[in-house]
Amino acid sequence: MKEEMMGAVVKTHPAAGAEWKQVPVPRVGPEDILIEVKAASICGTDLHIYEWDEWASKRIRTPQVMGHETAGDVVEVGQDVSSLKPGDYVSVETHITCGTCYPCRVGRAEVCSSTKIVGVDTDGSFTRYLKLPARCAWKNDRSLPPEIATLQEPLGNAVDTVLAEDVSGKTLVVLGAGPVGLLAMGVAKASGAATIFATDVSEYRLGLAKLMGATFTFNPLRDKVVEAILDITRGDGVDVVIEMSGNPEALSQGFKVLAPGGRLSLLGLSHGPVRIDLNNEVILKGARIYGITGRKIFTTWYKSSRLLTSGLLDLKPLLTHRLPMDQFAAAMDLMRKGECGKIALLPAA
Amino acid sequence: MKEEMMGAVVKTHPAAGAEWKQVPVPRVGPEDILIEVKAASICGTDLHIYEWDEWASKRIRTPQVMGHETAGDVVEVGQDVSSLKPGDYVSVETHITCGTCYPCRVGRAEVCSSTKIVGVDTDGSFTRYLKLPARCAWKNDRSLPPEIATLQEPLGNAVDTVLAEDVSGKTLVVLGAGPVGLLAMGVAKASGAATIFATDVSEYRLGLAKLMGATFTFNPLRDKVVEAILDITRGDGVDVVIEMSGNPEALSQGFKVLAPGGRLSLLGLSHGPVRIDLNNEVILKGARIYGITGRKIFTTWYKSSRLLTSGLLDLKPLLTHRLPMDQFAAAMDLMRKGECGKIALLPAA
Amino acid sequence: MKEEMMGAVVKTHPAAGAEWKQVPVPRVGPEDILIEVKAASICGTDLHIYEWDEWASKRIRTPQVMGHETAGDVVEVGQDVSSLKPGDYVSVETHITCGTCYPCRVGRAEVCSSTKIVGVDTDGSFTRYLKLPARCAWKNDRSLPPEIATLQEPLGNAVDTVLAEDVSGKTLVVLGAGPVGLLAMGVAKASGAATIFATDVSEYRLGLAKLMGATFTFNPLRDKVVEAILDITRGDGVDVVIEMSGNPEALSQGFKVLAPGGRLSLLGLSHGPVRIDLNNEVILKGARIYGITGRKIFTTWYKSSRLLTSGLLDLKPLLTHRLPMDQFAAAMDLMRKGECGKIALLPAA
Amino acid sequence: MKEEMMGAVVKTHPAAGAEWKQVPVPRVGPEDILIEVKAASICGTDLHIYEWDEWASKRIRTPQVMGHETAGDVVEVGQDVSSLKPGDYVSVETHITCGTCYPCRVGRAEVCSSTKIVGVDTDGSFTRYLKLPARCAWKNDRSLPPEIATLQEPLGNAVDTVLAEDVSGKTLVVLGAGPVGLLAMGVAKASGAATIFATDVSEYRLGLAKLMGATFTFNPLRDKVVEAILDITRGDGVDVVIEMSGNPEALSQGFKVLAPGGRLSLLGLSHGPVRIDLNNEVILKGARIYGITGRKIFTTWYKSSRLLTSGLLDLKPLLTHRLPMDQFAAAMDLMRKGECGKIALLPAA
Repeated sequence: MKEEMMGAVVKTHPAAGAEWKQVPVPRVGPEDILIEVKAASICGTDLHIYEWDEWASKRIRTPQVMGHETAGDVVEVGQDVSSLKPGDYVSVETHITCGTCYPCRVGRAEVCSSTKIVGVDTDGSFTRYLKLPARCAWKNDRSLPPEIATLQEPLGNAVDTVLAEDVSGKTLVVLGAGPVGLLAMGVAKASGAATIFATDVSEYRLGLAKLMGATFTFNPLRDKVVEAILDITRGDGVDVVIEMSGNPEALSQGFKVLAPGGRLSLLGLSHGPVRIDLNNEVILKGARIYGITGRKIFTTWYKSSRLLTSGLLDLKPLLTHRLPMDQFAAAMDLMRKGECGKIALLPAA
Repeated sequence: MKEEMMGAVVKTHPAAGAEWKQVPVPRVGPEDILIEVKAASICGTDLHIYEWDEWASKRIRTPQVMGHETAGDVVEVGQDVSSLKPGDYVSVETHITCGTCYPCRVGRAEVCSSTKIVGVDTDGSFTRYLKLPARCAWKNDRSLPPEIATLQEPLGNAVDTVLAEDVSGKTLVVLGAGPVGLLAMGVAKASGAATIFATDVSEYRLGLAKLMGATFTFNPLRDKVVEAILDITRGDGVDVVIEMSGNPEALSQGFKVLAPGGRLSLLGLSHGPVRIDLNNEVILKGARIYGITGRKIFTTWYKSSRLLTSGLLDLKPLLTHRLPMDQFAAAMDLMRKGECGKIALLPAA
Repeated sequence: MKEEMMGAVVKTHPAAGAEWKQVPVPRVGPEDILIEVKAASICGTDLHIYEWDEWASKRIRTPQVMGHETAGDVVEVGQDVSSLKPGDYVSVETHITCGTCYPCRVGRAEVCSSTKIVGVDTDGSFTRYLKLPARCAWKNDRSLPPEIATLQEPLGNAVDTVLAEDVSGKTLVVLGAGPVGLLAMGVAKASGAATIFATDVSEYRLGLAKLMGATFTFNPLRDKVVEAILDITRGDGVDVVIEMSGNPEALSQGFKVLAPGGRLSLLGLSHGPVRIDLNNEVILKGARIYGITGRKIFTTWYKSSRLLTSGLLDLKPLLTHRLPMDQFAAAMDLMRKGECGKIALLPAA
Repeated sequence: MKEEMMGAVVKTHPAAGAEWKQVPVPRVGPEDILIEVKAASICGTDLHIYEWDEWASKRIRTPQVMGHETAGDVVEVGQDVSSLKPGDYVSVETHITCGTCYPCRVGRAEVCSSTKIVGVDTDGSFTRYLKLPARCAWKNDRSLPPEIATLQEPLGNAVDTVLAEDVSGKTLVVLGAGPVGLLAMGVAKASGAATIFATDVSEYRLGLAKLMGATFTFNPLRDKVVEAILDITRGDGVDVVIEMSGNPEALSQGFKVLAPGGRLSLLGLSHGPVRIDLNNEVILKGARIYGITGRKIFTTWYKSSRLLTSGLLDLKPLLTHRLPMDQFAAAMDLMRKGECGKIALLPAA
């Protein structure tokens, strides 16, 4: 590697927007690797940072390179790194966990009390080279193209949300057909969910839902979601609710269709506290609710990558756009309008 | 059995109060048994019915004999009953489940869609004789006195709430030191919970909490509960929250002290929907929440009865009052004031 | 229903063989139903009874009608039956459990201490009409043809064996490609198992294994099974071993390829005790072993039937033969030679 | 720390015995700590090494300092160590795991494919100073005396064996009342096991079993173990079998008393393969078997240490001997004769 500078999508100021500008190629420490980025997909979090919402304004320090979902080739390794070598093809576990807090020491690093997230708390991957602690790299099978391999990071969230318990032979609803919701439908289908209901207010996304495995799709703006699902399940309701929307009304519908004794997994973040009828929707129903964040490191990665390499899960329908990295503004625009599945940024020419 | 009439605590009209009056001894069907009541303890639900709150006014049909927590002797069995015989000493599983709904058919009868509850949907046990389907009887060990054996019904709720997951070597808080909260402390202590925090607004009940195994007790009217618990746990929080209060503020405190990756079990019913910060308290924490209602039939009963007969769990400190059944009004008064643990009604002279 | 007699495959004497003879149509008791058999598939157990092996000679009392895997129409219901009516289309849970033993009372009826099995302890279904306790009937969706619906009984065993824990995104080997092994492969594939290895000594059955979802098949007579599986899994071994062969050598191979921390489920019965290197194969590996028998009533049936009706699991490749019921001898001959998948007996003309 | 040499129990040659001799104080690397040993308890493995059995002769390279169960004070930390400082009081997780194998990456480090064990694969702790990777240290509460704190290592094995599933309100048998078996009884008692049966051929150890919480003790040389346990459990058998003996006959008794649907955990290593009647004892019983080795790092340590500091588990009855370290030969003699519980070696004068 010869360059000293590289083009990058940089959040330069604490305000909406970002700039394509030259920044120094990072230097690796003894336990780091340097990855040449081959594909970096855009997450909803990137849009929040780009648009500078309240959360971003509190969390992000500028200037910082954006981006975290990544696949690429190792081009350099620190002196203490023995698990990887230049030429290895990797994806990125974006949670840099502390290893010493209570959750880390009891095998729950995904809720580490001091997690740093790539592209949120450190310089990210919407650029040529990403520096990463070697222990956060996941070695890919060469059969996965980079624009699919980069999706394993959000896919892991979907995997953990859906597979918090077994879904084979069960009925399931996914609330919200955004990218992670769509990934969840694919995971559920590949894992034997017998009936998959999907809800979203976007007809575009309900179309993608069908491609990703939804058996029935409902638009709450048009359909009586609760009545329809109870009707199809003969009043039993669904065994599993997967909440991906962050929308309190969707959540409420989810609770209403959840069968007694059923399970609800929550991943979608809402805009504030949510009112829940705990008596009727949780206690008297004997429901189980799981909050899901991050991926189990690396248990989830094994599952996710195998679902892909086995061909059981095909993410191509979800990958609706590929754009050169310096066209990030156009990509953010597509994201804002919701007229996309996942967008992969590729190295700028 | 010769009598044709018996004294009973009867809800005669759809209004507050109840009457001690003579009613016919029930006749058993082919699959029923008749139990001579030796002790019947009072549940919070009985108080709701007595005081005729909104829930009661919708659910209860008058006239009806009150009471469900029961221990006594079998005095008669229906012609098709082979599992029990006169002279057997039993307690009562108060949920009469349908056996044919979806939850019943997948081993979750405790959330049966058509449960009938003794003393709520049928004539109850604050009287001399209780008629019960034989399959709802639990045969007791004679070593348990009736006023302890009757407590196995609410104890089962505590057992399922606490033991939804293993508690051995874990830290735990019980929110609410009413009778079932106190039972939960006893179960947690007997099951190896290393530190048991208890919260309640009643000093009387915090005193009972100490007797039932609480390591630390806090009164939110006086103590900074969250700070105190986080301080003692060195900032880690507790592994397990047991919600027994139905109080939204207590629940909020519970969420705040729950360790990342922790578990919260809900049994206490609240007065309406509750606002929850799902983002920070459930999702980003990777929490698990279990709604608990009823007892697993009869898995829970095996555990409960063995904790008692082994001597690991001693309920005597909790049994603060014994009254003849016709003094039910005085008992209800004690319940209303919260100046009691559990009250056992005994056969009237 | 007018007939008084019907043709049946009857084990008339305690010796090998069976006869097609006329027997009385059974009379239903108050809690029974009468099923007109539309398809009855043959189980390995039926072959054991037919050939009169040691187990059969101890267990079976003659004369008795053979057969248990069944699908058909309800034609009569006892006076106390409300959950079913004539015209309903059902399959048969063949375990008639007692409901009062310890396993039954703790939700483990599949290991009931006093189970009676249809066609083993009672008259069976290789005939026109089967009498069955109503609570053992499973109502089918009409979309399933009888010769598929009858397979839900053995399918349930495969479902419980495979799904004792989640298999999605995991690697798995099925030892033995007999009918239940083949069902297990189908279940594993439908439930997201990423790589499915299959072993058997019959090339015919390894061919069926490919059709049912096996990724790789090995014949231990020809292939170095352990080396091959370790090679493909890069030395990690498999997450899950499904033992369906009852063959100690196959089991030994299964232990050798099981990854540390892995899971092994046992269904296949062997001819006697088996030598196991518990130190290296179980303890130091931190393995989990599950013995599986019967089906969870009716949790498993919900899963099994949904896998079929959803189209995720297609059993047609496994259903290799359909024969009129009175040609049972030819069917048994096919079974003995292993030149078949499942055989469905259909009503004789 | 000024010394350059220290006394140590050294396995000097590949033969039975060991010597007390001077060896250099170890030098810490950047990620290591140096612990001044305050107490080091003796494990059965130490006896195997001392007596140079077949396993030891294959595994151990001489010369090597013996010993692994340890408690002491940190006196020096390597330059990259931030989680500990001199003066900290620690116990030792003796498994030095690789962090990169499949089990390590899926949260199962206790079955790491490349574990190195302190005192087995590296110099151990029967000496003044132990060098240890900082990540293997467990910080103790000062309330635990060193001769108790050192026991947390074997205690962790007992904790994982007993608590592989919840035991509260269950019946349980511990096969083998050696030190880890005795620890298991203490854990079971503290965790709510309602009835604890213990078996051993040593009356001395059955006496300790009573002190550690056994409800009933049986000596198979004298008692009909199976009949006695089935009689006391009214034929139901026990919910949980804890195998600590490595004795095939004891294991066979364990299987015979295991209730249908029950759980058996295996820790004791046997002298070779064991014959098991898988049909009747595992498959038809629907049993679950768990192989247990090592401790979950550090989930188990939290549980173990809390059981001790809470006072729920008292190990004093088990700690039968305290000896100066240079009297190791006398200690090994006690171990060989089985006339001891645990022996703590203390710093030589």
